[in-house]
Amino acid sequence: MLITLLTDFGTSDYFVGAMKGAILSVNREARIFDLTHEIPPHDIRAGAFTLLASYETFPPETIHVAVIDPGVGSARRPIVVSAGGQFFVGPDNGLFSYVYERESDCRVFHLAREEYFRRPLSTTFHGRDIFAPVAGALSNGVEPARLGEEITDYVRLEASLPVLKDNGTLEGSIIHIDRFGNCVTNLTREHINEERFARGARIVVGEHEIKELRRFYAKDEKDSGEVFAIWGSAGFLELSCFLDSAARRLNVRRGQSILLIEAVKNGN
Amino acid sequence: MLITLLTDFGTSDYFVGAMKGAILSVNREARIFDLTHEIPPHDIRAGAFTLLASYETFPPETIHVAVIDPGVGSARRPIVVSAGGQFFVGPDNGLFSYVYERESDCRVFHLAREEYFRRPLSTTFHGRDIFAPVAGALSNGVEPARLGEEITDYVRLEASLPVLKDNGTLEGSIIHIDRFGNCVTNLTREHINEERFARGARIVVGEHEIKELRRFYAKDEKDSGEVFAIWGSAGFLELSCFLDSAARRLNVRRGQSILLIEAVKNGN
Amino acid sequence: MLITLLTDFGTSDYFVGAMKGAILSVNREARIFDLTHEIPPHDIRAGAFTLLASYETFPPETIHVAVIDPGVGSARRPIVVSAGGQFFVGPDNGLFSYVYERESDCRVFHLAREEYFRRPLSTTFHGRDIFAPVAGALSNGVEPARLGEEITDYVRLEASLPVLKDNGTLEGSIIHIDRFGNCVTNLTREHINEERFARGARIVVGEHEIKELRRFYAKDEKDSGEVFAIWGSAGFLELSCFLDSAARRLNVRRGQSILLIEAVKNGN
Repeated sequence: MLITLLTDFGTSDYFVGAMKGAILSVNREARIFDLTHEIPPHDIRAGAFTLLASYETFPPETIHVAVIDPGVGSARRPIVVSAGGQFFVGPDNGLFSYVYERESDCRVFHLAREEYFRRPLSTTFHGRDIFAPVAGALSNGVEPARLGEEITDYVRLEASLPVLKDNGTLEGSIIHIDRFGNCVTNLTREHINEERFARGARIVVGEHEIKELRRFYAKDEKDSGEVFAIWGSAGFLELSCFLDSAARRLNVRRGQSILLIEAVKNGN
Repeated sequence: MLITLLTDFGTSDYFVGAMKGAILSVNREARIFDLTHEIPPHDIRAGAFTLLASYETFPPETIHVAVIDPGVGSARRPIVVSAGGQFFVGPDNGLFSYVYERESDCRVFHLAREEYFRRPLSTTFHGRDIFAPVAGALSNGVEPARLGEEITDYVRLEASLPVLKDNGTLEGSIIHIDRFGNCVTNLTREHINEERFARGARIVVGEHEIKELRRFYAKDEKDSGEVFAIWGSAGFLELSCFLDSAARRLNVRRGQSILLIEAVKNGN
Repeated sequence: MLITLLTDFGTSDYFVGAMKGAILSVNREARIFDLTHEIPPHDIRAGAFTLLASYETFPPETIHVAVIDPGVGSARRPIVVSAGGQFFVGPDNGLFSYVYERESDCRVFHLAREEYFRRPLSTTFHGRDIFAPVAGALSNGVEPARLGEEITDYVRLEASLPVLKDNGTLEGSIIHIDRFGNCVTNLTREHINEERFARGARIVVGEHEIKELRRFYAKDEKDSGEVFAIWGSAGFLELSCFLDSAARRLNVRRGQSILLIEAVKNGN
């Protein structure tokens, strides 16, 4: 009965309200929680990241409705994903790529049973007319398999994984920048560890070098104000700056390359 | 027990939170859903449109609290509207004009029974002190007629309807621009149909001519990038552009005139 | 079972969604209400004011989770406050100063029992890993005293109170500016009353003098457009302007000094 919403609709239009009404018209008892409606318009990759960093905190059987849908009304399929004990409803455009990557039990169904859609079905607002009522149906206990055929050729975004170069340098990238200017990279504990850092490994972003891997945002009262690396709460290495924007300090945008350069071994 | 909120309060102040508390203090079991708090300050017409495009998706007995209220504390009356099986609570300033237009069973009551208001009653925040507790009372089952006298001289905004000119041209206007730059017009299927368009009718906005009436936002991969017309999800003709802002392309604002010019009949 | 959220996380990131999930994973029946997530980043004083103006409208046993937490992960303590029949969960950095001031029955507990935290505990996101699950536990009926030791040396912000100067002038300040440009001062009915105003007391802000203390935002249709004083809904004197921003008119920011100058007594 728990339903979350993640969209790029913003909160100034009627879109979000109309989706809530469409859910409640199917299941009056549904409990609806806004994750965010501020995904940049049409930015599937940002939606996928934000969903990743949110869904794992929710209890089993939560239904996540995610609508970043530049292809609404075209041939792209509406789908429901059953994975990790939760459900994901939205367009088949790669929005659930991280879920496919993290959960080993994914099953994906093409939403094709129109009796679960809102009538009349518009061509422009499937959030209200397909995804919301389908989420309502799921919350009423309808099995995903009853909503359409299972498919295996669902869309995955090209993975954004770090690349190991010939000279031993690992090239990652910044996959998200948050409100505070923290830069989330695609480097995880598989790629980098504190020992390596302690032995002299350096992170280089453009012309900047990050020398410190911290445990806390707040170091002490005499904080130097430099950008540092830190394990972020989504499980990725982040670049941060205490009480300032690391993104602005480093002058970076999403997609910016980040190099992890090993220390030169001196003869021993 | 379902209560929605639509205001121009924004989400950065205490206003919305205080309203939620005031509702819950009257009915602890109330279930509250944000429609939007981002109506431009004091913009009654934008609030009316957004409410129109949201309320019809909600189930019977939903209580919609709408507060765009530049006249708070003055002589404008607080009202509750019973219409279409739902309730609408807010100031009598035209905010519910579309509801009056669409629903044939409207009954409007002047909220005058102070025992249903919050004490002490401020002169500046009726959202918290009148509309929220009255919504709480309605959700507790209090009949609208118990909240005040029925009135018939409630305020309606001047209707924004297209005008047919002598030369056969229909002059409509843009009544809303959404986050994606889609321009919602006041033209409905009564005014324009696809056949007419197929026979050569043209839409002219300023110096721009719109030649195409599409069924989907996304046409195909070789989209020309031009502005097109499409039936929007609120039931009005919209001007859109795939992955771009039609409003910016056309350089228009709300209120801009839009002309529907019939094809010239050639001699038959 | 009522839980509110007040943060500086904004609504575009995963932070708020992750907190909601973390609460619901502890108590699936929790009912969660957003107060605001738009407190300016790290602005403890703004958070404290907004919480003050919201919490009193909520019913008993409401649990308010407030996270403006520049010191996350450092030595600052996580706390729960029991006061006025409600609960407040967040960092011990002064965020609850107004609660301490208004409620006579405050008890503060240092959250130290890790079995109520989320595992693994991050160093960067205590909103999700400490405050959310603790709120979930409180909503399940866990007593605050079971969550940690009671403390008395909790942090209070330096009070922002008006100062009476030698010449009889009262110097206050602007403690908040809202979305509409209303300037909330720290002057209350203890400091100023309408009689005093009627006898000629003047309010001076920079080069501007405010001459009128109004009862309503909307005066009449021939509003002069000048800035006036009015008792705001949070119990403080505010400077306002009908349908315009008083802050812009006065060219002020938060912290700006405001003088209440007594009328000169002429010989009696």
